[in-house]
Amino acid sequence: MGATGQRSSGDIPRVVIVGAGAIGGFYGAILHRAGAQVELVMRSDADVVREHGLTVESDVAELGDLSFRPHAVYDARATPVPGADFVVCCVKVLPGVDRAALIAPWLGPESVVALIENGIDIEPAIRRALPDHRLVSGLAFVAVSRVAPGRLHHHAYGRVSLGNWPGGVDAAATRLAEWLEAGGIAARTTESIVADRWGKSLWNTPFNPVSVLADGTDTNVMLDTPGGEVLIRALMAEVAAVAAADGHTLSEAAIDKNIAATRTMNAYRNSMALDYRAGRALEIEAILGNVCDLAERYGVAVPRLSMLRTLIALKQAEAKGLMGDRS
Amino acid sequence: MGATGQRSSGDIPRVVIVGAGAIGGFYGAILHRAGAQVELVMRSDADVVREHGLTVESDVAELGDLSFRPHAVYDARATPVPGADFVVCCVKVLPGVDRAALIAPWLGPESVVALIENGIDIEPAIRRALPDHRLVSGLAFVAVSRVAPGRLHHHAYGRVSLGNWPGGVDAAATRLAEWLEAGGIAARTTESIVADRWGKSLWNTPFNPVSVLADGTDTNVMLDTPGGEVLIRALMAEVAAVAAADGHTLSEAAIDKNIAATRTMNAYRNSMALDYRAGRALEIEAILGNVCDLAERYGVAVPRLSMLRTLIALKQAEAKGLMGDRS
Repeated sequence: MGATGQRSSGDIPRVVIVGAGAIGGFYGAILHRAGAQVELVMRSDADVVREHGLTVESDVAELGDLSFRPHAVYDARATPVPGADFVVCCVKVLPGVDRAALIAPWLGPESVVALIENGIDIEPAIRRALPDHRLVSGLAFVAVSRVAPGRLHHHAYGRVSLGNWPGGVDAAATRLAEWLEAGGIAARTTESIVADRWGKSLWNTPFNPVSVLADGTDTNVMLDTPGGEVLIRALMAEVAAVAAADGHTLSEAAIDKNIAATRTMNAYRNSMALDYRAGRALEIEAILGNVCDLAERYGVAVPRLSMLRTLIALKQAEAKGLMGDRS
Repeated sequence: MGATGQRSSGDIPRVVIVGAGAIGGFYGAILHRAGAQVELVMRSDADVVREHGLTVESDVAELGDLSFRPHAVYDARATPVPGADFVVCCVKVLPGVDRAALIAPWLGPESVVALIENGIDIEPAIRRALPDHRLVSGLAFVAVSRVAPGRLHHHAYGRVSLGNWPGGVDAAATRLAEWLEAGGIAARTTESIVADRWGKSLWNTPFNPVSVLADGTDTNVMLDTPGGEVLIRALMAEVAAVAAADGHTLSEAAIDKNIAATRTMNAYRNSMALDYRAGRALEIEAILGNVCDLAERYGVAVPRLSMLRTLIALKQAEAKGLMGDRS
């Protein structure tokens, strides 16, 4: 303890989770179960969680009840305590939200910044703002939702991919993966987290915005309505073309595999569809806009992705107008 | 008068308007003012109109109050009286609505079928079902809406283009145009009504479905949101390519002219946007689907129009599911 702030003792890492919503709260619970010192920075529900802890019920039998009482809970007005071993950022990637500014107050000289966030090309803003810190980039494959203040419901999945950005796996990435594994979920390190991001983008970039344009519809509607599967495949092909231009060629079978896997699921409303239906902000730029921007940088034609982006912008402009904010 | 039904005497035409909603009621009022014998076939409001007449208030000063009492008003259960001089069909062009079957009962051997309806390629179904009748195809440029049972409000415009299908102008087309002119609106005959339809489609086919995907938004949102005008122009270019393949090359300046004219208007919600917001059926196939089908027939690539069609289908499938009709 000193001017640089508070570090946990010995091997037990002090983990500050910035943006502890459903995803951040869930992985906080996992790391707590592993024995880490977990502190949550919450935009909402901080009072409830400080008093009663975070309730995390999982449908995954091996995980069971993950409810825990965090070592500390901070709201927006709290004075940050810098010097965490890991500052894990689970904030939604939205225009106008300065994630680096939310992370910075919790950092000491040795702190590792870890992102568990969706999207393509979401690391450069963090790297530029925080150039002196090790940066671990992570992707979560998980279905978890907030059901009430201080209450999460974990429906399924949970695995995490972790690697340094733009590539490689250092000791910090390995250590975070080990602690997540110790907490009961699959966490794999990857030499190319960007490749993993493209792999996830192949699904998210088409399905998420299309579901929103269809008012938050599910996978069955998107694949079974005439023209739907053809459109999704055409959008996936455009994503794959951008990925290849970015140096991450996806396997030829990737599109077929994604469609087949989606068909094995029950009708599924993806996270963006749920965000839309709940009136929450959408990670459109992280999931779709950044892919379009990279396509432009590389000179790859993406007429359908570009059209999708514009249609979402129109829908959001109309919604904003209806709320009386239109000038 | 005889077995073939009722004809008006002398030069005064008996006009039966099938599908006398806002558009049909308005042109019925115009023809009544000109002195024609006007009879309305109404899906709704027949009782009110039979008792009180049709109230038609116009914002166009020269037209003023067009309210009138039709010579006859028929509802769906009425026994048709065949032998009209003109059977004017103003029914929305929707899948599953057999317009020819609605027209046929009012026909005698000499009756002229006139369509005042939106869309591309909407005449073949009528021609096939009613091969022995003269066929006049018409387009209305009018803003009129039903404000209450038996009450219409005419906001602006009103001109009509008329011609035979697939081309030419016969005496029947000329006569109908003359009666409309006599009623106070501009009615021009054209040697190629199909070319006129493509001209209107250049605007409707992009703007109408895009407005629906943006939840019924207006022209300002569509043109002023980043990417919006670029998308509308790209969609217009695809429409123009199909029109050219169909033998109706639009002028090179047509797209610029349409955009410029739209920018001179105040924020405008088109008829399909209004239909969407009111929960009414959409003429998507007539306005967009038929253009895509023609494109396929001619081998013209229309990736954006095709995507638009699919996205509308997904949105409609989701809406149907929410109403509990999804299997």
